[in-house]
Amino acid sequence: MSLVIVGSVAFDTIETPLVRKEKIIGGSCTFCALAASYFTRPGIVAVVGEDFPPETIAFLKKRRIDLRGLKIVPGGKTFHWQGRYGEDPNHRTTIRTDLNVFQDFRPEIPAAYKKADILFLANIDPDLQENIFLQVEKPKLTAMDTIGLWIESKPEALLRVLRKIDLFFANDEEVRMITGERNLIKAGQRLLSIGPSVLVLKKGEHGALVFSRDALFGIVAYPAETVVDPTGAGDTFAGGFLGYLDQVGRITPREIRRAVVYGSVMASFIIEDFGIERFKTLKPRDVQARYEVFKKLATF
Amino acid sequence: MSLVIVGSVAFDTIETPLVRKEKIIGGSCTFCALAASYFTRPGIVAVVGEDFPPETIAFLKKRRIDLRGLKIVPGGKTFHWQGRYGEDPNHRTTIRTDLNVFQDFRPEIPAAYKKADILFLANIDPDLQENIFLQVEKPKLTAMDTIGLWIESKPEALLRVLRKIDLFFANDEEVRMITGERNLIKAGQRLLSIGPSVLVLKKGEHGALVFSRDALFGIVAYPAETVVDPTGAGDTFAGGFLGYLDQVGRITPREIRRAVVYGSVMASFIIEDFGIERFKTLKPRDVQARYEVFKKLATF
Repeated sequence: MSLVIVGSVAFDTIETPLVRKEKIIGGSCTFCALAASYFTRPGIVAVVGEDFPPETIAFLKKRRIDLRGLKIVPGGKTFHWQGRYGEDPNHRTTIRTDLNVFQDFRPEIPAAYKKADILFLANIDPDLQENIFLQVEKPKLTAMDTIGLWIESKPEALLRVLRKIDLFFANDEEVRMITGERNLIKAGQRLLSIGPSVLVLKKGEHGALVFSRDALFGIVAYPAETVVDPTGAGDTFAGGFLGYLDQVGRITPREIRRAVVYGSVMASFIIEDFGIERFKTLKPRDVQARYEVFKKLATF
Repeated sequence: MSLVIVGSVAFDTIETPLVRKEKIIGGSCTFCALAASYFTRPGIVAVVGEDFPPETIAFLKKRRIDLRGLKIVPGGKTFHWQGRYGEDPNHRTTIRTDLNVFQDFRPEIPAAYKKADILFLANIDPDLQENIFLQVEKPKLTAMDTIGLWIESKPEALLRVLRKIDLFFANDEEVRMITGERNLIKAGQRLLSIGPSVLVLKKGEHGALVFSRDALFGIVAYPAETVVDPTGAGDTFAGGFLGYLDQVGRITPREIRRAVVYGSVMASFIIEDFGIERFKTLKPRDVQARYEVFKKLATF
């Protein structure tokens, strides 16, 4: 099968109560593709400026990520996000967003990607997400992510994309905002009635819940003793999830459950260090070992 | 085996955003014993006033709960707690507490209970909890619960009890308060170093985590669409948990995992109605059916 990821490749400046990291590598597409690269060869569609480090490009290539859809704008500057985490790593504040080359990003799916089996629309403007549907030929699975900003500022465009999508990754707050329902279980079910046949609810330190027409599945989070930087955990989850599905080539309820576990496994690693650092040392056998830990954690 | 529960039998006045329920039946001991009665014949140690309804006594008897340790104070008034829930059922405010006969409660373990295999000290003054250890003969398992009030007002007495206890039921906030550690995994492990060999962390709508010296186990909560009244959910969890262990008669890591699931099952029922109402219609086959739902929910 094949997986295509559309999203951002960015610089992040991260402040935690202890440390400040200036212009490290971030972006939804980056995290997602790196996580997926443990299972398959994902292709990305994104844009960066000329200031983007060649050594990161080399690292992405080394991880066998297909960069034919990565546009480098001559003289342009890469998207830069700056955020701060409080004592509670679940609380994040955006301090500054410099869209730079992302401002005029109109994702174009390269000819080589048009027959992608799995398409992931990471968080970008829902109008851009919608346009991508016109550029691909019937993927077996389409998935998306979004953020509160779009739910508030472009609710209609977002609903149009939700009606077309198969699988939606979201957190508690986003599902409550979209459906207007406080109870998470009702909210999840209401969301399925909008369009997606699967909702993957990411609950951070509380794990994940999967809603589908016929069943619910839940898993607790990996018991992380140290959360260094939660940035990118959601995209990394999506990358592990979709990468695994692409690898096994079967989108069945059973494989979706396992995909949730692989998503959780990948996210549990990435928060152990800043930005994409953890991917630089992470081995496939580490991934498999932690999958087994999840098995022990959840079996009764 | 045999299970003895020491705690409160009370009246609760509950306010939710929609409904107010005046002087319904509550109390940690009541919830816990009723839940345990689906698995074993628990004995209780508690006190009520003469105003306590005979029909409730009859109901407890009908559920085959051993009431030899229930003291009825002539002319006395039963403990009365009044609380209010916000739109978020996890947020509770105590409006009023009338200790009444509970003020002078000095739990006495009846001779018939002294050889209990499992002893549960539900939330009461840690000085009283400590005294109970002098009254029993080496239970196979001792378990306890507490609340923030005692962690703040009697930290030393509480630590003395914690050092003697085998199993501690607590929520996130309590474990963080006791250990002074924000990260829940570190906090849980630090708590084990105080004394208990097992910590059952109740996370409400996010499920439960069990810490023990050799392993961690986690389960998500039952996907409740309607939470009518969360009062007593924690005690009901403890009742299902300990009742199951008493029934199987083996306190092994494997049975502890299953006990967590039965605890979760029982708690998931009790929040569907006010006070102890749900126990009036709940059948053993409902319990078993929901255990199977949990299995489907958690298997990958």
